[in-house]
Parts: sequence; C-alpha cells; structure tokens
Amino acid sequence: MYTLHYWPDSASQGLRILLRVIGAPFTEILIDRENGALDSPAYRALQPLGKIPALETPDGPVFETAAIFLHLAERHGLAPSATDPQRGAFLSWLFFTSYNLHAPLMSVFYPERVASDGPEVAARAAGLLRANFATLDAMAATPPDWLQGTKPLPIYLAMLVHWLGGFPPGHAAHLTLEDLPHLGPLLAPLELHPAVAEVCRDEGLKLTYLSDPY
Amino acid sequence: MYTLHYWPDSASQGLRILLRVIGAPFTEILIDRENGALDSPAYRALQPLGKIPALETPDGPVFETAAIFLHLAERHGLAPSATDPQRGAFLSWLFFTSYNLHAPLMSVFYPERVASDGPEVAARAAGLLRANFATLDAMAATPPDWLQGTKPLPIYLAMLVHWLGGFPPGHAAHLTLEDLPHLGPLLAPLELHPAVAEVCRDEGLKLTYLSDPY
Repeated sequence: MYTLHYWPDSASQGLRILLRVIGAPFTEILIDRENGALDSPAYRALQPLGKIPALETPDGPVFETAAIFLHLAERHGLAPSATDPQRGAFLSWLFFTSYNLHAPLMSVFYPERVASDGPEVAARAAGLLRANFATLDAMAATPPDWLQGTKPLPIYLAMLVHWLGGFPPGHAAHLTLEDLPHLGPLLAPLELHPAVAEVCRDEGLKLTYLSDPY
Repeated sequence: MYTLHYWPDSASQGLRILLRVIGAPFTEILIDRENGALDSPAYRALQPLGKIPALETPDGPVFETAAIFLHLAERHGLAPSATDPQRGAFLSWLFFTSYNLHAPLMSVFYPERVASDGPEVAARAAGLLRANFATLDAMAATPPDWLQGTKPLPIYLAMLVHWLGGFPPGHAAHLTLEDLPHLGPLLAPLELHPAVAEVCRDEGLKLTYLSDPY
C-alpha cells in the first residue's frame, strides 16, 4: 500500500514510527544517498528537491515531512477531520511545528547552508527553537486529543525532541523532556511503544529514544 | 463568521483575497502593530508568536498563513478533499510553498534575524528561493486543478510573486511572472480579479498586482 524512502535517524524516522502505529501494509526502501540516489531521476520524480523522506502511495508520491504526517493522519482517521471543531487548532500547530520548530532545527544542524558564520546561525536558530518549544509547551498545559498518545503530531514532535536531546548539556540547542513540563509527560510514553523500539533497533539507536537518545 | 487580523502588504494579504473569493461573511481588523498590539495578551491568545495574520473562526483561532489557507480551503470546498486522489500532491506542494518558498522569502526580507551578515544571508536565501520556484514551475507544466484559478494555492503563490516583483531588476530575489513559464500564465489572470483589485486599493497598492507590483 505504501512505500517509504528513508535514511536512519533522518526526518523519515517519525514516519516509520507512524506507519507501524497505523498497521497498514507498507514497505521501506533505504535510500542509497551516498551513491547519488537523491539526485536520480527516479527519486526526483518522487521528491523534486531530492530530500528525505518521500512516500509512495496508491494515489502517487507525497513529500515534505509534515505533509506526509498530515496525509497519513487524514487517510487513517488519526487527526480531527475537516469538519471537526478542533481542525483549525490542529492545523495551526502542525504548521507551527514544521515552520517554527523543524525549520530552525535544520538551521542548527546545517548552519553553513544559511551563512558562512555557522556558529552564529546555529546559536540564533537554537534560541528561536527553544523559545518556540516553550510556546508550544504552554499550549500543551491543556492538551488536546491530537497532541496525545500515538497521534501523528506527538510522534513528529518526539522526533524533534529526540534530536535535540543529542546535543550535549550546555549546548544552546540541548533540550529534553524535562524542559517541557506540559509536553514532556505527553511524549514520554512513546519511548515505551513497540513501534518506536522497532525503529530504534532498525536504525541502530538506543531504545531510550527520548530519555537518553544518543 | 470570520475575523481576520491583518496588516497591509503582509502575509494577511492573500487571505484577504481568499476571503473575498469565498464570499462568506467576514470582518477585518487592522492590527495596531506600531503600538504593541502584536504583543498584547488578546492578540497572543489568537497568535501565540505575535505574528500576522490570525483568523478568528466560530471554532476558535487559526494561525500560520499556510494553515489558514488550508483551513479555509477545506471548509469551503476549494481543495481536494481528504479522500481525493489529488490530496497528497496538493498537501505536498502546499507545505513546499510554506517551507521552501515562504520561509526563505522571509530570510530575504529580514536577513538580520538569521545572522549579522545580512547581505550574505539574503543572497543565499534568494538563490534557494529562485531554484525552488523553478522546481515548482516545472511541476506546473501539467497544471493540476488545485493550482488554477482562484484556488487557495495560486492565491498564496501570487502573494509571494507580488513581493518578489518588488525587488529591483538585477537583485538576486527579483522574480516576475516571465521567470515562470508554466506557473506565470496560471497566476496572471488573478491580477484582473475584483477581489485582488479590492485588496490592492484598500492596501494602497497599484492595481498591477503581479505585472508591475510597486
């Protein structure tokens, strides 16, 4: 039914978890990124910028991490539907996560893409990221249904927190569940979910996905 | 039914156009941004980062420009529904527009937010932006329904092209409809639409929204 093109511990990770939670048939293809696979015409037909991930579906390819999360959520009833009163809030915070959390996190990982003074770019992006996580955490004080359990948005957020936990304590981008008094308890149970454990094992990661990620 | 908080020639612009196309009842409130309105508790309750725009709906506030476009599209039947075979492609290119076009455009406008070497940040973001517009334009060679007419995505894209047309010729970010052989002809008719003309008049802009924007 689905074919996900992935690379270990990249943005495909949360989608690998979500596909296991959904339980619909899927296959996964490890991208041969070190041999130019991202620039191959076949992959560019799935993902025009040659980024990871891309999802093949019976209706054609879907790309952009947040778009794939949303599409799978909709097709499998895991998010408020278009007519649900919670729809607008859900969409707002999904785009918030993509634009205000995921994007600056990429600037922390790859600051030299943004400007030659990498450390300055990374430090500013890290500050923005932490501030934006605090904004999200404040909202999570009254957690809506779509921010709980194995719904797509908490899985997406857990992936970001997993990465941020990999920065050493004292680093501007270091962030753990303890820094998120409201969101942290919502995400913590994911670490014990079999889907997360399976992806961690397959990607060569510690099973302490959020509490001690690297 | 809707209340849009806006500022002239900011990201609210495309939503002002879309609300007129939809024709549902709405009001618009000019944000008193120069007197701290973006930081007021009342506005932060609508838009937690204090950005423009925010939309009040009967179901509560919606924010993030792309999320508002999507929400209005869904509530008024202006985008492929969740079960439509075109849904995945539509979502992919909507998120593409937000993440790969709108975000770098903000780095061209406000490079000093990213790093102290503003000109370098702006030049790199402009190069990325032009490359990503070319990628979108290639897709538009076979234009899907959701990329035509007064659908939300072409209105969103037209706003970005309007802004880019304001950079002087020769500037790295200068881009016009002529640079987009496939997308350009799809967007050009919007300039003649009464909703666009009305917003241009109200925002003190020339009526040549795309062909000669400033």
